[in-house]
Order: sequence, then structure tokens, then C-alpha cells
Amino acid sequence: MALVNEHFLKLPDQYFFSEVTKKVNSFKVTHPKAHIIDLGSGDVSLPLPQAAVNAMHKAAEEFTSSHSFHGYAPRQGYPFLIEAILKNDYLSRGVSLEPSEIFINDGAKTDIGNIGDILRHDNSIGVTDPIHPCYIESNVMCGRAGCFEEEGLWSNVVYLPCTPENQFMPHIPSQRIDIIYLCYPNDPTGVAMNKTELKKWVNYAIENDALIMYDSTYEAYIQDPDIPHSIYEIKGAKKVAIEFRSFSKTAGFTGVRCGYTVIPKEVTATTLKGERIMLNKLWNRHRSIKFNGASYISQRSAEALYTSEGKKQVKEFVSYYMHNTQLMKDMLSQTSLSFFGGNHAPFFWIKAPGHLNSWQFFETLLYEANIVGTPGIGFGQNGNEYLRLTAFNTTEQCKEAMQRIQQWAKQ
Amino acid sequence: MALVNEHFLKLPDQYFFSEVTKKVNSFKVTHPKAHIIDLGSGDVSLPLPQAAVNAMHKAAEEFTSSHSFHGYAPRQGYPFLIEAILKNDYLSRGVSLEPSEIFINDGAKTDIGNIGDILRHDNSIGVTDPIHPCYIESNVMCGRAGCFEEEGLWSNVVYLPCTPENQFMPHIPSQRIDIIYLCYPNDPTGVAMNKTELKKWVNYAIENDALIMYDSTYEAYIQDPDIPHSIYEIKGAKKVAIEFRSFSKTAGFTGVRCGYTVIPKEVTATTLKGERIMLNKLWNRHRSIKFNGASYISQRSAEALYTSEGKKQVKEFVSYYMHNTQLMKDMLSQTSLSFFGGNHAPFFWIKAPGHLNSWQFFETLLYEANIVGTPGIGFGQNGNEYLRLTAFNTTEQCKEAMQRIQQWAKQ
Repeated sequence: MALVNEHFLKLPDQYFFSEVTKKVNSFKVTHPKAHIIDLGSGDVSLPLPQAAVNAMHKAAEEFTSSHSFHGYAPRQGYPFLIEAILKNDYLSRGVSLEPSEIFINDGAKTDIGNIGDILRHDNSIGVTDPIHPCYIESNVMCGRAGCFEEEGLWSNVVYLPCTPENQFMPHIPSQRIDIIYLCYPNDPTGVAMNKTELKKWVNYAIENDALIMYDSTYEAYIQDPDIPHSIYEIKGAKKVAIEFRSFSKTAGFTGVRCGYTVIPKEVTATTLKGERIMLNKLWNRHRSIKFNGASYISQRSAEALYTSEGKKQVKEFVSYYMHNTQLMKDMLSQTSLSFFGGNHAPFFWIKAPGHLNSWQFFETLLYEANIVGTPGIGFGQNGNEYLRLTAFNTTEQCKEAMQRIQQWAKQ
Repeated sequence: MALVNEHFLKLPDQYFFSEVTKKVNSFKVTHPKAHIIDLGSGDVSLPLPQAAVNAMHKAAEEFTSSHSFHGYAPRQGYPFLIEAILKNDYLSRGVSLEPSEIFINDGAKTDIGNIGDILRHDNSIGVTDPIHPCYIESNVMCGRAGCFEEEGLWSNVVYLPCTPENQFMPHIPSQRIDIIYLCYPNDPTGVAMNKTELKKWVNYAIENDALIMYDSTYEAYIQDPDIPHSIYEIKGAKKVAIEFRSFSKTAGFTGVRCGYTVIPKEVTATTLKGERIMLNKLWNRHRSIKFNGASYISQRSAEALYTSEGKKQVKEFVSYYMHNTQLMKDMLSQTSLSFFGGNHAPFFWIKAPGHLNSWQFFETLLYEANIVGTPGIGFGQNGNEYLRLTAFNTTEQCKEAMQRIQQWAKQ
């Protein structure tokens, strides 16, 4: 009798984002004429940089001849893309990595979800609260998160509160945690972490022999030169951190699918007997067994983002959303609403007015201003009084949404 | 202190196929003038069907405008592709499935590797011997395979021998097994399973409340109308089988990356208390948490294979390799070598002559005829006297390789 992995049954029945979609769809059915503006989606809407599209056409054409055909890709990714990453994303910031420390994937989510496979199921984990649900849920699936308790928390998860009181910068915990997930610039709060703060975490990890899973998929939105784009800009991080990057938010690759994971060879974890094992080697084995490489077209397309034409277009792409962000920030500032973020990421974390909780705030804005946000509770207990708004819509829509919110906030 | 998943340390240090590549590369260095013919690779070499390339260009162009841009794909795949699959791969063979029973992925290997996540780590597994190493290795990684014992076998794996004595058709085991992996047409032996044989397995699974993981990625190569392309052609299979398909070998998608997994809603496994859980639902949760959809371009490209133009080109694609297969079969028949397969799959399973083991046979052919095969031992103990040759090269190269083998076999 085949038995199921019962850890799956601990997951909430509904995937949070599906629940949001369901509620929006109900609204649409009952209000067919309403003009809804979606500021809930983390998905992009601008066309791809033309350099990426040109590279796609070129790659597609290569498939028409045996001589230029590409079959199975190297499991870790094509050298042409890895070299471009090393040179542009790391060497340019003073970080030197080897090609074999980069793993090209089909998007950051897959690797963030699977990276736990190479670690024991009983390591303790630490997450900021709020945080994107996929970090915790991938740990629930393998039993690492423990049990879901009455207070709405997982028994084996250490929550690091991010609130206005600490400017959404988690305090270093007093206890030891084995694996810590950090995402900066942060989804959902839109807050970035400077070198001083990030250094505290790297030092904590070194002192406690802990691992940091660093999600820097929004690094392209950083505006301040003092804020690190990569955790490896911090001394010692190469011993304790795995970094996840993606082209999704940098260049609109959410439908193209390409990202990468960095595992320096110095990063180790131990066996029960205390032997230190190189995680790069384990992940390489994982990839050989469970992956057949990322799409050639996607890799060529990503490579094109590093050409001079591509870089210019990526900059324009990011600027567009940061322009929206600035516009939203200015307009939100004219309301009585309390909000955070919007400096180094296209996210706003808006405090629900009065005694509304996040679902109530979500429904109020949907029904009274026809604006879709994301209820903060989907990101953790500390999100229960917040709504996330993103700037990933057109400038016109962002502006109109803010006008509606200004109008609505007056009432 | 972060601890590693020690099951990874049980894996052989080297990935088998990397070892083969390493040996071939050593040969190349010491024999720079040798003209090597590669019949070891399971990778294709023909250009993509033009319909698929045209669809890629069209999809790439859609990314240039906000109106036709595609961001995150539906997690289970785009309806346009799912509908084409249901109609052409299943309804045409009398199998009726719902759209939500299909999961589009980035290639079969990922899902075959990850499917075990939704099942308990202590289910017993059964595999044919020989079998592609990824089935066992993905189970080793999570501890399900047990320990590697001196005889070169995993303690929790039931091996189902496939030898000339049983025409490479595994006998139904006397004990109960929870999860059975079957791959037909088979890689590496090249043998297909007819309805009568497959029916025995479906009945075994029903009687024993077992699960069958059915890999039918080579179904397009089936020549005999009596041989099932899908396990769901067998009555009752929808209750007990998960099927994996891929466009890699059907249409040369090894570099494009697209495949799909079928999990009928009737397929269940149980909790320890005996409650039956729908695996479709668990896999859907898995996909929501650890996957962001397959590339839009790859999905559009796969869809084009189901147009009338695409179908014609796929047929030509498959015919080319089956023509190679027939040619190789005819020429091998003229030698003293004993071999199997080559009827419904582009694989030959060749018995090592004399007392050679599979690595020795591999090296002999490499050094004496400059032909690369794959040592059978990489597929299991029963492969220790065999070499796998594939027909995935050009007709000219296949022919020349066979001439060399004829010459070599004479000596």
C-alpha cells in the first residue's frame, strides 16, 4: 500500500494566492462593469527587452539545422551565460566566483523550493515575518517546519518579526538557527538591507555555523550605492551563504523562465559525525539526477541582457517600474495612510486603517476603489494589518489607482 | 550547525554518465586524429520540426508588446497545450482525461525525480534491472532506497530482472511493492511491452494497492498497433498509475525543455490511518510551491507539434531514427554479436562478446572501432555484460559505425 507524505496534509488547503484570485473573480462576476486595477500581482507587464527577443529569434533559428542544433544543455548551464553573470553581476561588484559555483535554473522559485533537499529534515529554520509563503511551505512539505499550531505558527520555525518598531529589519536572534532565509530587497515590505545590517547576519551565521539562503531577486531595483546587491559583498559570506537570483523581475522573464543559484565551494554543512561537506557538490549531484538543464532559448535570451544594448534596456525596464514606485510613493504620501517600502523595490506595505485586518482591507479596497492588493496575512502573522501593493502595472494604471486611493482615503 | 542530508553521501561519487564522458575525453586527448562516432548519447541530433521553430518565433514576437506579453504561466500549463495533448495523445487512443489531470513541465526528468516528494520516505520501490539510474538515485537522495550493499544493490529496492531468459519482460514479483517504476518502450534495452504484459502489472497494482510510475517517453517509436502508447489504455490503470511523457525524443526538445505528467484524479495513496488521498491534489500543491510554470515559448512550440504540419514533421522525425534503427538492426544481424531491442525504440542492448564486462566492452569498441556506447552496468547489475547503442545519430554515422562493428566483429 503506497503511503502519502503526510507532511503535505499539514499545508493549508488552499494556496494563498489562489484564494486571492478566487475572491477577485467573484467580485468580477458580481461587478461586470467595474474597472479593476491590479496592484496585487508580483508579475511584470512591460514587453521584454528587445535584445532578449532578438536572441530568442536567433536561438530558435539555430534549431533549424543539425550543425547549430542544441540538445541537452550542460546541467549547470551554458558557459556563455555563466561567464556573463560572473563578469557583470559579481566581478563588477568586487566578488570573484568560479564558473562551477553558478547553477543556471528555470527560475529562482524551483531552486528555493528544492534547495532544502540537500539538508537534513530536522535542521531548524528561521524566516522573517512577513515573508513570501513559498519559503515556509517548501519546508512544511518535507517535515522541517514541524506542526501548525493554534496560533497560526509552525512549531519548528523561528519567526523573526519585521515591524515598524525595527524598521522591518529583523533582530539577530538569541538562539541558534541552522538555516535562515533572508530576502532583500524584501518582498512584501519593499525594504532593503544595508551593509551594516547584512554584516550582522553573516557574522551570526559564521559564529553559529548556520546557513543563509539569500534571495536577492529584486537587487536590480536598489537605488543606493551603499546597499549590497549580493550577500557576497560582505566578508565571510562565501562560507555561509547560498544566493538566489532571477531574470524575472530584472527583465520580465516570468514567462521565459531563467534564473540562477550561487553556491560557493566554501559553503559547507556537516554530517552528524561532524564531517564538513561541500554543498556545491551535493547540489551538483541533485541537478544531475533531477534536472536536464534550462532551456537553450531562455539561456541565450538571458545572455543578451548583458550586452551593452541589453544592459541599457534592462535599466529602462527597471526605471519604468521605479518611476511608478516614486509616483505611487508621492501620491500615497498625500493620504493619511501609513506605508513602508517603495525605496529599493517596487513594493509598498500599507497599514490597514482603523481596525481592519488584511483581508478586510483587501476587500474594502476591492469593493470601494476596485483596486486589487495582496492581504498581508498571506506573508505571515505580522502581515495581518497590512496590504501589499506593487508597482508592476502601467504608469497610467498606477496613477489612476493612486487617485482612487486618495479619493477613498478622504472618505 | 546546519546538517546535510546524509542520504546524498550514499550516492556514488561520480554521476555515471559523467564517467563515460571523462573516459571518452581521455581517449580524444591521446587519439586526436580518431574519428569517433557517438552512439552512446541518448540525445537527438536532427533539427527541430519547422512547425515548432515557427511557433517559437511567433511566441518570441509576442513578448515585444504589452498586449501580447506573457508573464507567469498557469502552474499546470497553458490550456492550449493541455487541450492538444488530451485530444491527440489520449482521446485518439480511447483514453479520456480531464485538463486538470495534466501537468506541463520542463521535461520528464524533473517530475520523475520529484514525484517521490509526495510519498512517504519508507515506501518500498521496485525497478526493472536494467533501468536508467535516475529512478533509483532520486530515491536514494530521500532515503527511500536504503543502504548500498556490498553486492552493489540498494537494501530497500526490489529489483525486477530483465534478461534474455524472460525476453526482458519483468516477472510479477511474489512480494508486495508500494511503488513500481516501469519504462516502456524501454531505455536501455529497446524492448516494448504489449497489452497483455502491461495488464498483468496494472492488475498487480490494483490487487496490491501499489502505484505504477510509467515512463512512456519513447512511445512515439512504437511500430506495432497492439502495443499500448499509454498505460491508461489498460483498464483500471487510472486508479494506480502516474504517466510521464516528454517531447524530447518525439520532436527533439532536449534543449527546448517541455514534457508532461499525467495524474488521474482516481489515483490515491493512503495515510497511516488508511485515509485515501488524491495524489493529483498533492502534486498540484507541490507545483504551486516549487514551480512557476514551464516556459511560454516551449509550451507554444510543443503545441505546434499537434498541428497537421507539426504531426507530419514529428512523424518524419521519428521515422528518421527508426530508419537508422532498422539499418543498424540489419547490419548487426550480419555479425556474430547477440543483441536485443531495436523494434519499437532507437536502442540496442548488445551482449558483450567473450568474457568482457560492460566497461571492457565499452573500452574495446572505443579503442578498436572508435565507437562510443554506454556500458550496461550504468543501468544495473543485469547490464554488466551489455552495451547500449542508440540510433540518435545521422544515418551516415550509424551506417559507418555498423560497418566498423562488422569489421571489428570479424577479428
